[in-house]
Amino acid sequence: MIQPSNKALVPFVSVDNMMRLVHSIGIETMLRDLASYVEADFHRWESFDKTPRVASHSDVGVIELMPTSDGEAYGFKYVNGHPKNTAEGLQTVTAFGLLADVYTGYPVLLTEMTLLTALRTAATSAMVAKHLAPKGAKTMAMIGNGAQSEFQTLAMKAIIGLENVRLYDIDTEASRKCAHNLSGMGVHVTLCKSPEDAIEGAQILTTCTADKKNATILSDNMVGTGVHINAIGGDCPGKTELAAGILDRADVFVEFTEQTRIEGEIQQMPDDFPVTEIWEVIAGQKPGRVDEKQITLFDGVGFATEDFSALRYIRDQVKDGAFCDPLDMLADPDDPRDLFGMLQRAK
Amino acid sequence: MIQPSNKALVPFVSVDNMMRLVHSIGIETMLRDLASYVEADFHRWESFDKTPRVASHSDVGVIELMPTSDGEAYGFKYVNGHPKNTAEGLQTVTAFGLLADVYTGYPVLLTEMTLLTALRTAATSAMVAKHLAPKGAKTMAMIGNGAQSEFQTLAMKAIIGLENVRLYDIDTEASRKCAHNLSGMGVHVTLCKSPEDAIEGAQILTTCTADKKNATILSDNMVGTGVHINAIGGDCPGKTELAAGILDRADVFVEFTEQTRIEGEIQQMPDDFPVTEIWEVIAGQKPGRVDEKQITLFDGVGFATEDFSALRYIRDQVKDGAFCDPLDMLADPDDPRDLFGMLQRAK
Repeated sequence: MIQPSNKALVPFVSVDNMMRLVHSIGIETMLRDLASYVEADFHRWESFDKTPRVASHSDVGVIELMPTSDGEAYGFKYVNGHPKNTAEGLQTVTAFGLLADVYTGYPVLLTEMTLLTALRTAATSAMVAKHLAPKGAKTMAMIGNGAQSEFQTLAMKAIIGLENVRLYDIDTEASRKCAHNLSGMGVHVTLCKSPEDAIEGAQILTTCTADKKNATILSDNMVGTGVHINAIGGDCPGKTELAAGILDRADVFVEFTEQTRIEGEIQQMPDDFPVTEIWEVIAGQKPGRVDEKQITLFDGVGFATEDFSALRYIRDQVKDGAFCDPLDMLADPDDPRDLFGMLQRAK
Repeated sequence: MIQPSNKALVPFVSVDNMMRLVHSIGIETMLRDLASYVEADFHRWESFDKTPRVASHSDVGVIELMPTSDGEAYGFKYVNGHPKNTAEGLQTVTAFGLLADVYTGYPVLLTEMTLLTALRTAATSAMVAKHLAPKGAKTMAMIGNGAQSEFQTLAMKAIIGLENVRLYDIDTEASRKCAHNLSGMGVHVTLCKSPEDAIEGAQILTTCTADKKNATILSDNMVGTGVHINAIGGDCPGKTELAAGILDRADVFVEFTEQTRIEGEIQQMPDDFPVTEIWEVIAGQKPGRVDEKQITLFDGVGFATEDFSALRYIRDQVKDGAFCDPLDMLADPDDPRDLFGMLQRAK
């Protein structure tokens, strides 16, 4: 074997290494750090090359590529969404991502992103709640207790000081799993028998269910004033979680309007339904929450810049070579024009 | 470390393994096999989900994602193009690719594609020449003797029986490198002092130069009748190699019209300049070469289906686990909803 040069070796963070990295940093610290990176990139929103994700749909799911660049680094994520997978013992969502140097075009990081996406999604929700939720919010209703639910809860604890979570899922087994995982984590957990029960006394209502269809997880008459809704389960065309009446009463905040009109809760609304992009709030250009009785709604679908922030964060953590393996992914002959000679010499 | 399940492990073909695979199969056999896969996929052109590549341009280069799907498999290639890299000791083009199962969304192959792209580009050119070049063509002018030149020559030998190649490059060192690499490979090599010298007696004229600008490698009065031009160096906006007058006299064949009008030689021509898509010739819907005096021109820019064919071919070669390493890239908890529990248990 001919040893490839350093330029040809791409640092790779496996699932195992990602788990070790999370535990090395501490999950709450990592959620706070990720939220800072995501917030910093929203703050410089206008420096990004933005495009809606490139989706390939089939009858059973979707495979997407989510690229973006800030002119210095280029990142993309591969992610699938297959709701039927769970019943077959597979993940609904799996993902990996890559960061590259715009100046050379050479990849500089390849990483698993199934775990990282769960972390960045939760960090983003909590960072947005910091800007929009009622001051001193301590209780969250968590409706939908699947793979994202514990991450959402811990991020809200780490970033805005959440103390109580009220769990509801149509599958009580999912709620029990979530409660079990959260035991001893410093959040008081209540198992609830209905969505109505779950939202009792909650200042933050998080919906994260997985059906690939239009559903009404929250009906209009369930939602009182002075709450923040964190709606993150509706994230593709034909999949929503909220009654349209709630959207009419709420001030709606989105990541990237062009994408959210296709994929978010607001796909139920007319094309000119008013929304505020969350970067405008973060950059101080538009107000977030303006009064106690307001209903704020984060119509979160996940955007490429959040993955870019997460990739940037991981790159900064593994710079010294820890928690990654060198991957011989790029051919790098001594003379760049002599690719064939490199191949022949390997014989 | 918790051992990931098989579903979580993605077979990875490194550069080293790709080189070993090429030598194990034999480069000429592999070029012929790749040409068969590429041709078979062009033959079922209408079954592919096609989109122009997703490009991120900067002042110094471009990073592209090239996705496609046939409804059963999904493939994409990451590829950069940085002409200035050569002067800095880096490859102009590096690439890797991924194949996934549309039904589950799970990746099934990750592979280096710098070498594989060189092989599939040459295989495609030679497969197209089989359909378009004058019968019994034995001599090729190879103008531009960079990383692609030896692959082009060997593919033409393996697929249409080329016997002679006439090399020309503005850098005589590049020609010497190419001649050296081709010695003993069964093709008679002639070093030429000018493009005019190189095309003397050649039935196939291949242009593959790397400048990122409009250039005139072949002028109108240099090209006689009864030749096939294989123009593969012009592959991005603002980069062409042929005088427009040649295009007017030739019958032009392309991969995917929508993409070639942006990137190919025909970007010099009006939007309604007539072209034939090569799949139409392969599927027997349109004629290829119709008479001896005709000038046929393959305006090749590289298309996603060719990478898909190459990925499919590699997957079929490594099915038994040879020539690849298992990559722990996908999180795969026992209970798909229990991603957090998997993370906690890894502590």
